[in-house]
Amino acid sequence: MVDPGVSAPIQKAVLTLAGPDQRALPLHSFVDRDGQPKSALQILLEEAQSAGVERMGLVIHPGDEEALERAAGELSARIQLIHQEEPRGYAQALLLARRFVGDAPFLHLVGDHLYVSRADRSCASQLVEVARSEECAVSAVQATREGRLCNYGAMGGKPVPRREDLFQVDQILEKPTPTLAEQHLSVPGLRAGHYLCLFGMHVLTPAVFEIIAAGDCPDLSTALSRLARRERYLAFEPRGRRYDIGLKYGLLQAQLALALEGADREEVLRGLVELFADREQGG
Amino acid sequence: MVDPGVSAPIQKAVLTLAGPDQRALPLHSFVDRDGQPKSALQILLEEAQSAGVERMGLVIHPGDEEALERAAGELSARIQLIHQEEPRGYAQALLLARRFVGDAPFLHLVGDHLYVSRADRSCASQLVEVARSEECAVSAVQATREGRLCNYGAMGGKPVPRREDLFQVDQILEKPTPTLAEQHLSVPGLRAGHYLCLFGMHVLTPAVFEIIAAGDCPDLSTALSRLARRERYLAFEPRGRRYDIGLKYGLLQAQLALALEGADREEVLRGLVELFADREQGG
Repeated sequence: MVDPGVSAPIQKAVLTLAGPDQRALPLHSFVDRDGQPKSALQILLEEAQSAGVERMGLVIHPGDEEALERAAGELSARIQLIHQEEPRGYAQALLLARRFVGDAPFLHLVGDHLYVSRADRSCASQLVEVARSEECAVSAVQATREGRLCNYGAMGGKPVPRREDLFQVDQILEKPTPTLAEQHLSVPGLRAGHYLCLFGMHVLTPAVFEIIAAGDCPDLSTALSRLARRERYLAFEPRGRRYDIGLKYGLLQAQLALALEGADREEVLRGLVELFADREQGG
Repeated sequence: MVDPGVSAPIQKAVLTLAGPDQRALPLHSFVDRDGQPKSALQILLEEAQSAGVERMGLVIHPGDEEALERAAGELSARIQLIHQEEPRGYAQALLLARRFVGDAPFLHLVGDHLYVSRADRSCASQLVEVARSEECAVSAVQATREGRLCNYGAMGGKPVPRREDLFQVDQILEKPTPTLAEQHLSVPGLRAGHYLCLFGMHVLTPAVFEIIAAGDCPDLSTALSRLARRERYLAFEPRGRRYDIGLKYGLLQAQLALALEGADREEVLRGLVELFADREQGG
């Protein structure tokens, strides 16, 4: 068995940004929690940086170089672009980052989520700390209502004794039906009708590249299920929320969530009240 | 005096999209009132089309061609791109569209606003109808609180007899101070502390090109003040609201306004309630 060596600092992150329907998402403008205007990509890169990451490998669609480098802002000096020439799915996109990653554990973020922590540390920082203290691969998860299973990978497993936020992963199914989820993915202790769905953020060991390269992995969930059979692999529920900006009204929800947890909370709430009041008044 | 001939249909619209801080705004994704995902540009072009416009001239920064044509969607066949090589301001940008416009009145929209009508017709359609029935240039305006004068051009003048929503324009000042506004721009009948600010939407006559070409027009407000001295020129308060997407949280406000007036109103309100509830619950 490979020693994953997760107790060392995580120095690299991989962001997958080449999905055909997702290419424009990292370019979107938000106001971050600190009240500063930033692209979604900048917010994601800062998330990785907050966890101690020094180099970010971005798997992109050829042609998006200039726009993404501009959107990366000051962190553009820390990124390396990796081309995915054809849309062959998310697991294959990750595999393209194998050389960039090398032989060490790495942080992986999807390109269509934003994260809003509710602790004094970022979600990525919480995740990396757990991976280092547990010395194994860890995927972040979020308790998610059954009605939203169609958007995510979901895990089955059981809580780690004496840890409310940590779970032993048995398997992960990609976008399961509610019936399949009920049969295979119930996790003791969760609220009824809720499942632990992927958060879009993982600390993975290079073993995942071997698994994907061996073939027959239509999605990352399949690869992660195999990882669970091969080495110690946990799931962690960070104190925070993920927002899928690729969903309809996802940009709106993410911006509101950032604003409500951020420096401009009062200003934004006042703006909401004015908008509603102005609407009721008509004119 | 030139006969503005506004009683004929308005066939052309000019959109100014080259402003240094505004170039990315037309590319932003929204969900429109009809529940369809669209770029801000698409929503603006549909606004113009709803008023009977057949050709749209877009004054753009060189290099933005491909992104804007993609963002225009199906309406890209109706657009003509006009390059503004150097940032020389908004009045000069409009002047570059002179040849495209020719010798007829035209609709002008700024590129950093979205419009949400509260009538059965779009704001642009309401405006064009007024221009045609009054047979003169007309700028749309919106009663705006004093604290926001710093973002807009504001007009002084008086109501047209027996018309609540129509005003004779005396002058327009660009981003006036509250003191200057109080001295020169009070309009009888408005709520205290409110001024009529530009809506970012005008029906103009080609006379405005002559005025700008004559020089010494630092902004469109100055040119419009001169237009007011030269020919009949009115201001109209449409039933609807403008949202300036270039302001901080402007994208958020515009998306919320579209959603609250649109087909997905209930879904979006439910999402807001869930977001607030989830936040209070912590986790």
